[in-house]
Amino acid sequence: MSVDQPVTVEVGLGDRAYDILIGSGLLSRAGEEISRRLPGTRAAVVTDENVAAAHLDTLKAGLEKGGIQPTVITMPPGEKTKSFAHLEEVVDGILAARLERGDVVVALGGGVIGDLTGFAAGIVRRGMNFVQVPTSLLAQVDSSVGGKTGINSPRGKNLVGVFLQPRLVLADTGVLDTLPIREFRAGYAELAKYGLIDRPELFAWLEVNWQKVFAGGPERAQAIAEACRAKADVVARDEFETGDRALLNLGHTFGHALEAATQYDGARLVHGEGVAIGMALAHRFSSRLNLASPDDAARVETHLRAVGLPWRMSDIPGELPDAEALLSFITQDKKVSRGALTFILTRGIGQAFIAKDVPASEVLSFLRENHPASRKAG
Amino acid sequence: MSVDQPVTVEVGLGDRAYDILIGSGLLSRAGEEISRRLPGTRAAVVTDENVAAAHLDTLKAGLEKGGIQPTVITMPPGEKTKSFAHLEEVVDGILAARLERGDVVVALGGGVIGDLTGFAAGIVRRGMNFVQVPTSLLAQVDSSVGGKTGINSPRGKNLVGVFLQPRLVLADTGVLDTLPIREFRAGYAELAKYGLIDRPELFAWLEVNWQKVFAGGPERAQAIAEACRAKADVVARDEFETGDRALLNLGHTFGHALEAATQYDGARLVHGEGVAIGMALAHRFSSRLNLASPDDAARVETHLRAVGLPWRMSDIPGELPDAEALLSFITQDKKVSRGALTFILTRGIGQAFIAKDVPASEVLSFLRENHPASRKAG
Repeated sequence: MSVDQPVTVEVGLGDRAYDILIGSGLLSRAGEEISRRLPGTRAAVVTDENVAAAHLDTLKAGLEKGGIQPTVITMPPGEKTKSFAHLEEVVDGILAARLERGDVVVALGGGVIGDLTGFAAGIVRRGMNFVQVPTSLLAQVDSSVGGKTGINSPRGKNLVGVFLQPRLVLADTGVLDTLPIREFRAGYAELAKYGLIDRPELFAWLEVNWQKVFAGGPERAQAIAEACRAKADVVARDEFETGDRALLNLGHTFGHALEAATQYDGARLVHGEGVAIGMALAHRFSSRLNLASPDDAARVETHLRAVGLPWRMSDIPGELPDAEALLSFITQDKKVSRGALTFILTRGIGQAFIAKDVPASEVLSFLRENHPASRKAG
Repeated sequence: MSVDQPVTVEVGLGDRAYDILIGSGLLSRAGEEISRRLPGTRAAVVTDENVAAAHLDTLKAGLEKGGIQPTVITMPPGEKTKSFAHLEEVVDGILAARLERGDVVVALGGGVIGDLTGFAAGIVRRGMNFVQVPTSLLAQVDSSVGGKTGINSPRGKNLVGVFLQPRLVLADTGVLDTLPIREFRAGYAELAKYGLIDRPELFAWLEVNWQKVFAGGPERAQAIAEACRAKADVVARDEFETGDRALLNLGHTFGHALEAATQYDGARLVHGEGVAIGMALAHRFSSRLNLASPDDAARVETHLRAVGLPWRMSDIPGELPDAEALLSFITQDKKVSRGALTFILTRGIGQAFIAKDVPASEVLSFLRENHPASRKAG
């Protein structure tokens, strides 16, 4: 595996500032990069069985080269691992290794492992050092920036957690070559999202260069770095999600409702696919409200379709609940503030904004018009 | 119950600054005081069965006067409630009440309820508003300032938690009249600790006025306020316990070891009693190391004895493990940093300091000399 000079994105959060290194071969340099920042540290690595099989040996060798002999804690793969029971297991594993507050907990995996491990690192001894080694494209562009950690509750996803900024993120773009294409595409939806929020030039660049991002050339690291920079900008403005940060939920209100409506069945819809459809719907809805041009909505749909992502509700296999039921999933969503419907809408590509008090009746009509059942009927 | 004008202690922590109100009858004013600071908030109250029987109706009436109809979550009493299972229960209760991030979680109880509830408030939706209503003297002088929350692990006490500053603390000194005298005394040990750390004038005042503090006159609120101010000063210097804050552990290294050596059996030794003996031992040890005058150690012992607190190991009923075993409890303590023995020692009353690299051999000799077995033998 070649080791190119990685791209560094600095996340500026005052005394919690940290670097994201993005490039191929970073797993092998993990020990060196961690020891340079946290000399003399000991470490626990938390991962899942699938990622362990593919990448744990490489990471361990990389840590050992930097003088770190990690304790390894392996979880089952999948969203169900974001539970209180597994949180307790990880916490106990870290304590069993007798790590102290100045030592480091490393998350090696996708979003599930990153969220669970960050939460554990945030609560053992009231906060240890945390290093992310995201192994999915989604985790590299999304969860590696922002400091959100957490688990799910039977009452909803990500309802329990802490804000914890990592001390370092190592986004090894080489590991993405082993991702199934469907998972890569789902992560790509979140990458494109940053273009749609406030970087129209990123979206335009992706329209031209997306195939190189998928193929794994230097364009891949470049695109990931640009998405991380975009997210870091938003997070730096609003670390604890009291305002602007809600922009990151572009596509997520519709997307979460569709995930819930399909019972989080990954065979039908994974998170990034829900976000892809959600972004297309948010643009189409904005156009219907005369906020944005229908041409922009069409451009988004065309690009999502080109990369092979679903972009409309009828792309989801199987039956969907009706529009009323979809609306009720939206009103149950945690982004509903004191009963009012808050949406991320847009005035065009790269011009997303937070719209409060969106009338539920408008959402319902829109869902009816775009529902696969109504299309078949009409 | 009379409602006097409460004493206000401001805890200065920048944008996390908050007030501690100290006085009689505050439960009845809870709704007013909370609504003034957090208008329109909804609330959950977390308490235990014993405290609920004594004070819940008063607090509920006080909240309702301020327009707050709380959801109540009741836990079993006792240290065992600081567990993952009960944390999950409290978290679920808060979510079931459909509270949002801007709503408030109120802890009504002693240290156990405060620690557990604060932890839950810190992780539901990644952090809600937290209000403490401490009902024990220990909780009023100790856990209501500092922002430490947490639960126990089978591997040790308070090993899992977060830092979360409350938005308000209501220390109702009237509720302390219902405390058993032994529990009041145990809390008093922590109160006296602040004099011993860096407020010699507080300790001298307590030597003269302690009976009025026990009796419940205005001196009680005055003493609690002074202890809160003392702790707030230390915490403001070191919110996340990276330095000076360790001073608050005066008496705790020996105290924790004695608690562990008695299997946390409250019938033999409660936390505050362990701290009392620990403070006396820390002074005696400092005198043995020629750091402080033996007269100061004697003064501490005399005062603890006068108020009816245990002050030496032989005051603990039943057999104690030998000195070697006690030392091993100390070296397992979480305040041991990278293998070196860190102690809070003193140069005299009100002159405590952090001593790193205290030789284990010195501690062992001292424990042998002061062990009840050796005294009997000698």
